[in-house]
Amino acid sequence: MGLIVQKFGGTSVADTDKIKNVARAVIREKKQGNSVVVVVSAMGHTTDNLVKLSKEITSNPSEREMDMLLSTGEQISMSLLAMALNEMGYKAVSMTGLQAGIKTEDCHMCARIVDIDTTNTKKHLDNDEIVIVAGFQGVCGDNEITTLGRGGSDTTAVALACALKADRCDIYSDVEGVYTTDPRIVKTAQKLKTISYEEMLELARVGANVLHPRSVETAKLYNMPMRVRSSFKLDDLGTLIIGVDEMELTRPVTGVACDKSQLRVVICDIVDEPGNAAHLFNLLAKNNLSVDMIIQSYARSSNNTNDIAFTISKDDFDKFNSIKGKISEILSATNIYIDEDIAKVSIVGAGMIDRPGIAAKMFDTLAQNHINIKMISTSEIKISCLIERKHSEAAINALASVFDLDGAEAADVKGDLPTL
Amino acid sequence: MGLIVQKFGGTSVADTDKIKNVARAVIREKKQGNSVVVVVSAMGHTTDNLVKLSKEITSNPSEREMDMLLSTGEQISMSLLAMALNEMGYKAVSMTGLQAGIKTEDCHMCARIVDIDTTNTKKHLDNDEIVIVAGFQGVCGDNEITTLGRGGSDTTAVALACALKADRCDIYSDVEGVYTTDPRIVKTAQKLKTISYEEMLELARVGANVLHPRSVETAKLYNMPMRVRSSFKLDDLGTLIIGVDEMELTRPVTGVACDKSQLRVVICDIVDEPGNAAHLFNLLAKNNLSVDMIIQSYARSSNNTNDIAFTISKDDFDKFNSIKGKISEILSATNIYIDEDIAKVSIVGAGMIDRPGIAAKMFDTLAQNHINIKMISTSEIKISCLIERKHSEAAINALASVFDLDGAEAADVKGDLPTL
Repeated sequence: MGLIVQKFGGTSVADTDKIKNVARAVIREKKQGNSVVVVVSAMGHTTDNLVKLSKEITSNPSEREMDMLLSTGEQISMSLLAMALNEMGYKAVSMTGLQAGIKTEDCHMCARIVDIDTTNTKKHLDNDEIVIVAGFQGVCGDNEITTLGRGGSDTTAVALACALKADRCDIYSDVEGVYTTDPRIVKTAQKLKTISYEEMLELARVGANVLHPRSVETAKLYNMPMRVRSSFKLDDLGTLIIGVDEMELTRPVTGVACDKSQLRVVICDIVDEPGNAAHLFNLLAKNNLSVDMIIQSYARSSNNTNDIAFTISKDDFDKFNSIKGKISEILSATNIYIDEDIAKVSIVGAGMIDRPGIAAKMFDTLAQNHINIKMISTSEIKISCLIERKHSEAAINALASVFDLDGAEAADVKGDLPTL
Repeated sequence: MGLIVQKFGGTSVADTDKIKNVARAVIREKKQGNSVVVVVSAMGHTTDNLVKLSKEITSNPSEREMDMLLSTGEQISMSLLAMALNEMGYKAVSMTGLQAGIKTEDCHMCARIVDIDTTNTKKHLDNDEIVIVAGFQGVCGDNEITTLGRGGSDTTAVALACALKADRCDIYSDVEGVYTTDPRIVKTAQKLKTISYEEMLELARVGANVLHPRSVETAKLYNMPMRVRSSFKLDDLGTLIIGVDEMELTRPVTGVACDKSQLRVVICDIVDEPGNAAHLFNLLAKNNLSVDMIIQSYARSSNNTNDIAFTISKDDFDKFNSIKGKISEILSATNIYIDEDIAKVSIVGAGMIDRPGIAAKMFDTLAQNHINIKMISTSEIKISCLIERKHSEAAINALASVFDLDGAEAADVKGDLPTL
């Protein structure tokens, strides 16, 4: 008798037939003697349609009212799933974020969960009911409805699993698991049987859109095993995400990913005075602009100026443009240019710690393929290179090949791991 | 500086253009220096679409989950209206039934409001915000979402108006007010400038679908003035509903209505024993069957039996059929027949009290038009006759004519009444 939290994304509940399919996946887990808590996203395009309605009214909606509007999406899918489970003979009860005790920060559209009061959920579980919780939403203060932002339902599921001390959190979607690289680009990409939180986090940050980093961070913090699996192939266990210390690391690199969502800003001829970089990045932070890679060149002795280059999300292009003038002013820099023709390729692997030569091998591979590197950033288990966008597929294929992430051999490289 | 509660029905908020139109109606009231609380229904066919989704899953959904599902409709329209008001430069905040403190009985799909905690609403009003409240919904017990059943949003609006001690409650819809009779049947039907709660209640009960009786009952109890008016003709003040003692009663009959939603059940040859009628109507009540008109014939001395006839809603036909056998058994009555070919025409008017001859005039008018009366029921301010359905239009036209409810003369019969 375990406790499993299952999360089903929008494509898994896109219509009533798919909702019935989800009900069968829930019952499958229930029949194995487990208590089940289910977290659902909004049906298919519901959220998009609601956003469209709001845009017909205003280009600048209040964030509070957007949360009020968007939180209805999950409430629809969860009640329909409860009905489907009832119809199949199982006791089920759906709960809003409020009813499930999901407390968040006092902030709209990107609130973080600060606490979960599981009293209500446990009461229903003790009554042998399947509990269905609205993903993506919570409440703050005086029962104000908040939403968690992108990937919010994943976070709801993991946070609930941690609060309930569940045995596992399964994230169901239309992908079958975590792959060594994007199977749309590398046809022979292999599905991983296991991956560590750390690797998953790095992969998520560098463009693998399987899970939102926040959900993985939470799972890592509480050491909550997660599975990424397909709601359309219930026999397939997908990919298990666990602590790195529970894994046998047999190869240095676990995955290759590519992120085309950024653009590069280059600011030239900044007078080399102390505090200039701090001024710049404070200004960016104050305007809620997240910066990813940063490079500052050495000061040229000839004129005592240097260059700073950094990458930001394309979505922040307008925001950046609105403060470009102020940046020029502060840094006395007239030359600010923006390079959209970039892609960031990254290799990720917990096994690269203490294995020298991985970075060299990456740079060498790119060079052999005549791919120029514009910027580099590294973490303990990740190396990212900014390259020209047109080379991104060639880079991924070459890196997948050189680090043994493609082909049949890669499939079983980690051997079988215990399933929960 | 007054406080006005406005309620807008589904057709008034059917799309985003209509929501903007509603925002203008709200601002109009606000600009006159009033505080405004707005109650909204779900957009157009939203509720129907949600019901359709539930039917794709089950023919017998849990009432709790239906409430969870349907309550999203109002949450969508209220947040969009708040955005529209913001866009037009007005502070506005939307609130769910829970946030607006609307407490109901512990029952789903037809809960009654038991209490309203106006703290939150007052706080926002004091802050000069327009408060938009989801109609049709409340909470019971441990924040369980409930809905109020048919006409629920009208009831929300009136109950809120009473709890807030508002100056008036305006019910906006696609009709321009309360008419002496159905303008689709009597082309010269006149819009009433005023009508009493009592008359409105009787009219609502006998088939005039303008307001749900529950909302009028509440308004009557708290002496809350209501207006029925059109959201598409804002200059038209519609019909004011007030206490009968505040009205000058210049004519005996205020309205004629027709109800085709019932069927008649006739039970013949019941042995005339004490308690038989009680047995019958207890059984009907136990099965949640509401009975409207009742007639019991005198016992025939020849065989000491009598007949009972009563009317029920057509919607309850299946429910009645399921207990028909039991009724036969209890009453030893073999002859139970059901007559669907009926209509109930009613005249309503507070002015008929103490004016003899109104009933006679009604029966006489029907007779002159060769319309046979099958059953009669009366209240202090209403007389209803059950007739053959095919005669219903003729009956309404004849009655409207004889009681001066059609034609130009009727229009100003009550003179001008003070507007609030």
